[in-house]
Amino acid sequence: MDQLKLYVANKNYSSWSMRPWLAMKAAGIPFTDELIPFDYEHGNPTIKAISETGMVPLLVHGDFKLWESLAIIEYVAELFPDAPVWPSARQDRALARAYSLEMISGFRGIRNACPMNLRRPRKAMPITDSMRADIVRIEKIWHESVARSGGPFLFGAFSAVDAMFAPVVNRFDAYMLTEHPESLKYMAAMKAHPAWIAWAGDAAKETWIVAEDEA
Amino acid sequence: MDQLKLYVANKNYSSWSMRPWLAMKAAGIPFTDELIPFDYEHGNPTIKAISETGMVPLLVHGDFKLWESLAIIEYVAELFPDAPVWPSARQDRALARAYSLEMISGFRGIRNACPMNLRRPRKAMPITDSMRADIVRIEKIWHESVARSGGPFLFGAFSAVDAMFAPVVNRFDAYMLTEHPESLKYMAAMKAHPAWIAWAGDAAKETWIVAEDEA
Ligand SMILES: N[C@@H](CCC(=O)N[C@@H](CS)C(=O)NCC(=O)O)C(=O)O
Ligand SMILES: N[C@@H](CCC(=O)N[C@@H](CS)C(=O)NCC(=O)O)C(=O)O
Repeated sequence: MDQLKLYVANKNYSSWSMRPWLAMKAAGIPFTDELIPFDYEHGNPTIKAISETGMVPLLVHGDFKLWESLAIIEYVAELFPDAPVWPSARQDRALARAYSLEMISGFRGIRNACPMNLRRPRKAMPITDSMRADIVRIEKIWHESVARSGGPFLFGAFSAVDAMFAPVVNRFDAYMLTEHPESLKYMAAMKAHPAWIAWAGDAAKETWIVAEDEA
Repeated sequence: MDQLKLYVANKNYSSWSMRPWLAMKAAGIPFTDELIPFDYEHGNPTIKAISETGMVPLLVHGDFKLWESLAIIEYVAELFPDAPVWPSARQDRALARAYSLEMISGFRGIRNACPMNLRRPRKAMPITDSMRADIVRIEKIWHESVARSGGPFLFGAFSAVDAMFAPVVNRFDAYMLTEHPESLKYMAAMKAHPAWIAWAGDAAKETWIVAEDEA
């Protein structure tokens, strides 16, 4: 089989790149990555040159190209049916997809106000109503799921839905959006996962500054 | 197996309800539906009472509840592996999901300016830059896919990705957003599909008016 290659942007800032990268890494799927630094001043020409949506993540598999983080995750889950990409019980898997899709279609309050920034020193920011609504919903998902599965991740072992929420863990942490002990416990489990440690370690070594994402 | 029941809102207006309904109907999956009319003035209390996101579509299967249109589609595709929910070739299926996810995460230019409204008399509206960008991308997806598959739908026979684009077909039609012959051909195929005809027939009989969606 051809090698899988995942194009990502700055590991410090690119929340959508992080998601399939963590999901694949945590599930033990073999792939290489290549990083294209953001270049917003020039309209990200290098990303535009390889990706028909002008966005990363982008998976390349032989001469097949695939974009959209969740489509990438589903594709590798099909290619490696024995890899634990999704929870193994059908209804857990369905809920994991529903939560992932809430992430993709919503939560714009915190997505817009609090850019992912893994190197950001922890510092609180004012919480608007739309941020508050997102925080309430996200914590409900986290707490109910961990209570149901027993944790430490949403459906027990780490799965793609945890990868979907990983950038939110950084936001909750860096912008100090919660003090709830169950949330802090989930966040600690995330930050202790080898896939997170590997990605965040790479981010820590980057020196690019994306001004738009320094909130 | 327990019966599947899909809660939807007004067939005339509810674009997200329409998507899994069409996907399931076109694939021959047995289900019943129940309609909860929008009641925006009162904050949609009946929808909120059954759905933890406060939104439809919502699938009920025994005591299991599932929301998010694409999660519903994936769940029924797993329950009925022989039903033609997605294209059968793996890379087609992956692209179909990527396009579906572009629909879910984007196209806010036309989604905001042009509410789905199946009963709306055809009438043009001014096209802003953000609408234009969405139209260009959507037509690229349609034209390339139909060229690749031979049509009449994006991957040959009707599949879930066509259901995802069905409300956009109504928008292109009702707000006269295109005159491109290949687009008009795809739109005509959609409007001749039995699942579309059944849904739109129900919409035509509704008498509720949702003022917000009368653009
Ligand atoms: N819905 C897409 C979102 C991808 C996305 O927004 N990517 C950002 C980086 S995190 C990007 O490539 N931005 C480049 C640009 O906007 O020019 C997915 O899930 O993959
Ligand atoms: N991302 C969701 C979107 C669902 C959605 O926006 N549903 C609308 C109807 S089309 C709704 O229930 N609105 C009720 C409200 O906002 O109060 C999905 O794909 O199912």
